[in-house]
Amino acid sequence: MPRARQASTTGELAAELGAELRGAEDIAVTGASTLEAADTGDLAFFTSKRYLNQLEATEAAAVILDAEAAPACPTVALLVANPYAAWARALERLFPEPVPEPGVHHSAVIGPEAEVDPAARVDAHAVIGARSRVEAGAWIEANAVLGADCRVGAGTRIGPNATLYDGTEVGERAHIHASAVLGSRGFGLAPEGEGYREIPQVGRVVVADDVEIGAGTAIDRAALEETRVGRGAKIDNLVQIAHNVQIGDHCVISGQVGFAGSTELGSHCTVAAQAGVAGHLQVAGGTTISAKAGVISDIGEPGVYSGFPHQPHAKWRRDMAALRHLRELRKRLEALERVTKANGQGDS
Amino acid sequence: MPRARQASTTGELAAELGAELRGAEDIAVTGASTLEAADTGDLAFFTSKRYLNQLEATEAAAVILDAEAAPACPTVALLVANPYAAWARALERLFPEPVPEPGVHHSAVIGPEAEVDPAARVDAHAVIGARSRVEAGAWIEANAVLGADCRVGAGTRIGPNATLYDGTEVGERAHIHASAVLGSRGFGLAPEGEGYREIPQVGRVVVADDVEIGAGTAIDRAALEETRVGRGAKIDNLVQIAHNVQIGDHCVISGQVGFAGSTELGSHCTVAAQAGVAGHLQVAGGTTISAKAGVISDIGEPGVYSGFPHQPHAKWRRDMAALRHLRELRKRLEALERVTKANGQGDS
Amino acid sequence: MPRARQASTTGELAAELGAELRGAEDIAVTGASTLEAADTGDLAFFTSKRYLNQLEATEAAAVILDAEAAPACPTVALLVANPYAAWARALERLFPEPVPEPGVHHSAVIGPEAEVDPAARVDAHAVIGARSRVEAGAWIEANAVLGADCRVGAGTRIGPNATLYDGTEVGERAHIHASAVLGSRGFGLAPEGEGYREIPQVGRVVVADDVEIGAGTAIDRAALEETRVGRGAKIDNLVQIAHNVQIGDHCVISGQVGFAGSTELGSHCTVAAQAGVAGHLQVAGGTTISAKAGVISDIGEPGVYSGFPHQPHAKWRRDMAALRHLRELRKRLEALERVTKANGQGDS
Repeated sequence: MPRARQASTTGELAAELGAELRGAEDIAVTGASTLEAADTGDLAFFTSKRYLNQLEATEAAAVILDAEAAPACPTVALLVANPYAAWARALERLFPEPVPEPGVHHSAVIGPEAEVDPAARVDAHAVIGARSRVEAGAWIEANAVLGADCRVGAGTRIGPNATLYDGTEVGERAHIHASAVLGSRGFGLAPEGEGYREIPQVGRVVVADDVEIGAGTAIDRAALEETRVGRGAKIDNLVQIAHNVQIGDHCVISGQVGFAGSTELGSHCTVAAQAGVAGHLQVAGGTTISAKAGVISDIGEPGVYSGFPHQPHAKWRRDMAALRHLRELRKRLEALERVTKANGQGDS
Repeated sequence: MPRARQASTTGELAAELGAELRGAEDIAVTGASTLEAADTGDLAFFTSKRYLNQLEATEAAAVILDAEAAPACPTVALLVANPYAAWARALERLFPEPVPEPGVHHSAVIGPEAEVDPAARVDAHAVIGARSRVEAGAWIEANAVLGADCRVGAGTRIGPNATLYDGTEVGERAHIHASAVLGSRGFGLAPEGEGYREIPQVGRVVVADDVEIGAGTAIDRAALEETRVGRGAKIDNLVQIAHNVQIGDHCVISGQVGFAGSTELGSHCTVAAQAGVAGHLQVAGGTTISAKAGVISDIGEPGVYSGFPHQPHAKWRRDMAALRHLRELRKRLEALERVTKANGQGDS
Repeated sequence: MPRARQASTTGELAAELGAELRGAEDIAVTGASTLEAADTGDLAFFTSKRYLNQLEATEAAAVILDAEAAPACPTVALLVANPYAAWARALERLFPEPVPEPGVHHSAVIGPEAEVDPAARVDAHAVIGARSRVEAGAWIEANAVLGADCRVGAGTRIGPNATLYDGTEVGERAHIHASAVLGSRGFGLAPEGEGYREIPQVGRVVVADDVEIGAGTAIDRAALEETRVGRGAKIDNLVQIAHNVQIGDHCVISGQVGFAGSTELGSHCTVAAQAGVAGHLQVAGGTTISAKAGVISDIGEPGVYSGFPHQPHAKWRRDMAALRHLRELRKRLEALERVTKANGQGDS
């Protein structure tokens, strides 16, 4: 089990979380674990009845859960309305992120007229382009590259080997992971002669506050204007976001999803892994797109959509089930044909 | 709207594009935009009748379009045969790429016997391996790594944090984006004992002139010989190209496509997003592979192919449509069964 | 044909491989090639009867093959039980990997209390975090970044621009390719208010001995505990491995595959390109998952699984074949309906 960087007591955690404490307030919490693997001193959490047996048998020092589940808790209970969010906050307390010392490593290269706030940190071999601005509490990790005229907002972290091309703007408290690329050339091509001419992409990428962008994810800059990722959106690893795409606020995009150019995703959408959304589409806020789905036309009505071409999830499931009985269907048809033929011969 | 780095007039643009000018020649063009969003001073373009309403209502200073559409243009018209390519060229004039100052940044590391042309540029913390050659006008961006014995042709740009493994060759005027990897070990494995032995991959990657390779795209070196990307091919982000693949001239490969080993794609193929092509296949020149398709056998006849396993696009569409009526089919079959059973009973 | 870095003779190769030599022992082997392209001095190999014509016509200096195929070999034969593994070993001899000079490049940045073995190599602009340990024979390539408290085992190679986040452990003789990211934040989110709160991910990534991890592949650290890649596992490019996934020993994972969180893959599994495996699943050792498949529930029985939702491969093939005859089925049904209607009218 991971040991806490900063131990706590059940009472302190209850206060921190605004939780109702059932049990002793002076139990030491020195680590965190799952219900099943928890050992002395570990904090755990419970959200799903699927794990009720594990709750009843847990050896955790304390468990975060909601009031309904409290009777089944064999140890100190921290009662909250939203156990999963409280778990996040408890972990933040037990495992506080090391606060990086501010300062610019001597090997970093800072371009002319770039401004690095004295309360920001720039690690070894990072490169900050001309006129770029790194605000207070931001952290540019080792070997990251910012082009010219970028902005990295307060408290934002740019991971190792990440790249921000010229003009990219990232808001506050965002988290861009290693090897992510923001602002690469949009894939705009004009047929000319026997091949293609690259259309200049003169826009940029703008990422709002509180956004997460996963490792290796690529977001192209706009042809004109801006490719945008809305406030609080969370994007996983190896996602492809083409030029002029607009990702709405608080969307959640899983790994290896792809968006073609100019598509707009409303707020609070969820897109599961390996799905793809074609270009120039509008997807209504609150839509859920299933894993591996392929969206090929506008989605005006929020709901769950699956398959390729996409359709309402329930319809897709029924079609998939029907497909699995297709051979049986064929056999029944053949049986009917035999009967009908026999009858037909009798009739003629 | 993005403001032009270098303003122009309608007359200058007409001359530059070889366009027929309809309207005043002295109108200032100070930006670029879509028909719909264009404002005073903006250049726009028109290629699709779908946007005819936008053309008629545009407030653009001037519009690039073809002669057929000219009568509908409410402002200065720049008439050309290929408006989209002319748009690209107009943007190149209005937004000229900053020409990087040649020179090697003091923090770059240049290996023994490497040759960097005095008219090339090498940015901060870039690393150029032994005996590698960087030709005139080439630009190696910050934190890019070239192994030994590489060649980067004249005018080619290697993006930040990109990697060229030993022996990689890139032609002239190519554009390799951030975090792309060329020449990584091909995934060749020989079963041995309880596991696998890595087969040495002693070939390399060769990329021809005028190629674009997107952010995070990975191209493995050949087991023997060369993995090749043909002249003018355009490859989007996060594409996987395995060892010994041959991509033909002027192919266009969209994001997150994958090619397994030794497959050969003829020239002028288009492969849409998230498609995959199995190994050791031949795909005829001029073939189009749809998004998410999975090609599992040779394609000898150019055409559009879709689905997995792939089939001609029209056939795939019909199958998908039929699938959506499968439950109705089942109900009709059941109705027939009832009738036949009743009739059968009547007959017996 | 690639020329050998270190030429050999047929006799030396036979001794090296423990092969039975049929033919002269003093033939110079100066390169390696396919049967078809081989020229004087080239070594080739034969494993599949599909290429029997190529074997019979080869101009190779010598061929590695098994005893059964020997009669068809027109040149010097090196007889072994496992020709493909022997081919790997022959290439290792002919094309020995350059042994990097140990030492730390002056531009590398080594953190406090980090230990780099004198027999390890650290290239230009690499960054080694505090307390990290690089063992003998390990090679940290240019611009790679290791966070704090990492371990890189003896003989392991970390590619250019690769990133190991804090606490990542990689065993011996492993090979991590360029731009791979190990230990990025797991994608754990708790709904809170109108958006999401990032759940601290306090675990890490542990990679065992003899593992290969492809270019651009991303492996997230565990929420708690460890994300693990087992001994001898081979992972291709652009693969996504979410937090807490467990990849068994000697698994082979092809390009662009994705695993959602907490899934456990038994040993000796094969997962083909662009497949996806949902979260919290158990996949039995020895399972093969086909390209583009989507696994959505536990797989208890080893076998080959295909499609989405996944099913046994043979079933999937039959369903796909049936789908292709669906329109014909509909026509036959319509014919029956006409006959039955006619008969029915006759009956009534």
